[in-house]
Amino acid sequence: MPYDIVVYNGTVATVDDRFEIIEKGVICTEGDRIVRVESLADEKDLPEAKMAIDAGGGLILPGFVNSHTHLPMTLFRGLADDLPLQQWLDDYIFPAEAAHMTAVNVSMGTALACAEMMLSGTTTCCDGYFREEAVAESVAACGLRAVLGQGVIDFPAPGTSDPRQNITVAERFAERWTGRDSRIRPSVFCHSPYTCSAETLTSAKKLSQKHGLLFQIHAAETRNEHERIRALHGMTPIGYLDRLGLIDAATLLVHAVWVDEEDMAVVADRGAAVAHCPESNMKLGAGIAPLTGLLAAGIAVGLGTDGCASNNTLDLFRTMDITAKLHKIRDMQPTAADAQTVLTLATRGGARAIGMENEIGSLEVGKKADLIVIDTRQPHLVPMYHPVSHVVYAARGSDVTTVVVDGRLLVHDRQPLHLDLGPIMERVNALACTIGGEASLT
Amino acid sequence: MPYDIVVYNGTVATVDDRFEIIEKGVICTEGDRIVRVESLADEKDLPEAKMAIDAGGGLILPGFVNSHTHLPMTLFRGLADDLPLQQWLDDYIFPAEAAHMTAVNVSMGTALACAEMMLSGTTTCCDGYFREEAVAESVAACGLRAVLGQGVIDFPAPGTSDPRQNITVAERFAERWTGRDSRIRPSVFCHSPYTCSAETLTSAKKLSQKHGLLFQIHAAETRNEHERIRALHGMTPIGYLDRLGLIDAATLLVHAVWVDEEDMAVVADRGAAVAHCPESNMKLGAGIAPLTGLLAAGIAVGLGTDGCASNNTLDLFRTMDITAKLHKIRDMQPTAADAQTVLTLATRGGARAIGMENEIGSLEVGKKADLIVIDTRQPHLVPMYHPVSHVVYAARGSDVTTVVVDGRLLVHDRQPLHLDLGPIMERVNALACTIGGEASLT
Repeated sequence: MPYDIVVYNGTVATVDDRFEIIEKGVICTEGDRIVRVESLADEKDLPEAKMAIDAGGGLILPGFVNSHTHLPMTLFRGLADDLPLQQWLDDYIFPAEAAHMTAVNVSMGTALACAEMMLSGTTTCCDGYFREEAVAESVAACGLRAVLGQGVIDFPAPGTSDPRQNITVAERFAERWTGRDSRIRPSVFCHSPYTCSAETLTSAKKLSQKHGLLFQIHAAETRNEHERIRALHGMTPIGYLDRLGLIDAATLLVHAVWVDEEDMAVVADRGAAVAHCPESNMKLGAGIAPLTGLLAAGIAVGLGTDGCASNNTLDLFRTMDITAKLHKIRDMQPTAADAQTVLTLATRGGARAIGMENEIGSLEVGKKADLIVIDTRQPHLVPMYHPVSHVVYAARGSDVTTVVVDGRLLVHDRQPLHLDLGPIMERVNALACTIGGEASLT
Repeated sequence: MPYDIVVYNGTVATVDDRFEIIEKGVICTEGDRIVRVESLADEKDLPEAKMAIDAGGGLILPGFVNSHTHLPMTLFRGLADDLPLQQWLDDYIFPAEAAHMTAVNVSMGTALACAEMMLSGTTTCCDGYFREEAVAESVAACGLRAVLGQGVIDFPAPGTSDPRQNITVAERFAERWTGRDSRIRPSVFCHSPYTCSAETLTSAKKLSQKHGLLFQIHAAETRNEHERIRALHGMTPIGYLDRLGLIDAATLLVHAVWVDEEDMAVVADRGAAVAHCPESNMKLGAGIAPLTGLLAAGIAVGLGTDGCASNNTLDLFRTMDITAKLHKIRDMQPTAADAQTVLTLATRGGARAIGMENEIGSLEVGKKADLIVIDTRQPHLVPMYHPVSHVVYAARGSDVTTVVVDGRLLVHDRQPLHLDLGPIMERVNALACTIGGEASLT
């Protein structure tokens, strides 16, 4: 029996426990799974396959896992930069969301996000937004893998003008998407400890527990949040969430910038995870999460881009490069956040953080067939002493030539096979004329 | 008379004093100069030209100026990362330089660097290395513009085993390249205050003054340097260089990380410039230069990638993005290092820093015809509210489709027209097998 897909003629970085680098590697898939990972001394021994993909001497990696996104916010990419946080939110982002995040536009922004993600090597994302139903339909149609959380917040938000309905909407979303598509896993996205009451927070957590879902929450992002929670509750945001019983092994804490040693000990003890979003934290002037401390405490950490309103891309290559450099300078230690650690964060670390470590994040027999190929025959990737160094410090999203998700080829020769990019970009550009016109009047 | 080149159908960012954004912009060139910059309401009024370049609705920008490079070090890209500074230098970089930086290899590494630079939108660089003769020949052949400094240091270096000859070699280089090629301007690259004696430093400066050359020097890069100079001379590196009379309007201080208010006042008063290399400073754990302070003091600042041993690319898009984010987080201020400021640093700021502000760095009538076109019809650049935001926060080197230097088309449709990339990459890869083999034995 021929394999479904055989990817050959590349250097494989397995990113498994042994972190093997396999020269002349070959990966074979059957259905949605990886069934062989090995070195092929002689190309004439290439296993038979329905589809043989020549990696062209490049790199074969597990697909990246983006552990924090707000996919539809691609619509606001670059709408407003370089502003104080509150002005950015109040004058630009909130009005634009209120006016334009219809289901149709959410779907369109998500399709654009999926195109951007797959073309830059991301095969799985963990998203939180409103109208997540439209997000889910769009992600499912695009062929990517995702954990998707319907938003819960005590303020009006796209699709729910009455915040009291949010838990019900979130539960309906969870029920609809449980077991519906093997690539989509529902979740609950509870906005933050400063935008949700204690009652909302605990209701959202209970909902997650009832359905066995990942509970995502922005936490300890800004100094302002830290100070507000301390003033109101006499403890840190992490301490407060923990007192409410919200931090456990199914909790993903997004940002975790303003955390002290005690907070980290709590997060580690509860088995919770962190989505580290360095670019967003830098761009908004929020602070620098203590990555090396989080890792030393044994906490599962993934990398996130955050939404395109605050980053402005979904390209995890940029995030990896910045992560490695940022933590060297934060710790004043060039050995901090080395390339292997950072590539692990972008793949297996993210998988672990969103509760999918047994299924994705590495190239191992039995895992889902989610992989990418990087073209290294380009001036900025020559010479190549260490493949992992290149992935973190030199490669770009546009170096990804091939993307397979769930055993299905989504990107070939840098082109998406099942997405019609032209119309998506045209429609988003047309909508942006309206949004931009309004924004310039504020 | 038709123009030589007309670039049309793009949004122009002039990056001149008025920082104009011109929709439906058109740029006309004659010889090596820009002769028209304007908006073209109707494409049928397109001026006649020997070569008409359709920007495809993208962005038209001045070519980037990389204010600090060591071009041949592309050969060591990714050779050794994530190491303590001294181990990185002593065990990897110095031995590799001693063994492999022959004139032939310097030339080859420079050609690779030129390919990488032009393909990512850089049209001018300011380089410092040894065997600069070979660098100059290679840059001249590749068609880029450059200020090139032959190295002066009190240690053996590639091409000069006897440091006492360095000044003589540097003078010979300056004489040979003065007036020889309109795109190449010789300079003196004096390594640093901790690798050169006071006598060497002053001799190198005198040489620069005698020939009217830019004097480049690494200064105030690391805490170690700062402490050494303080212990030896009782002052900061900037204070020490100033006491020696080395800081004036023809001085480019590279790094300037460890500078205090008094240092900045001195640099500003003398009219000296700074090459800011944030990625190298982060990766080596050196520190963060006080960019906003330098700019507030009125100092001319350019952006540099540094050499590929410490970054690991020559892509100024990455540098711009990191610069904007790094200084927001350094200052805990999201308004710091806004996109317009950062794009200015990468173009006109760099031009000013290397003494070429009257010739390059903006799209203005009378300046050299050095320009690039960015393709914005891609998912990660859609939608586009503000062109400058996209350049800094979202675009990549690979988005550059067209590069004109000195009125000559060097890159068209993302391909270099006058460089044969295949053989360059092949030869560098072959050399890297030897270098990598030796490095793995250390």
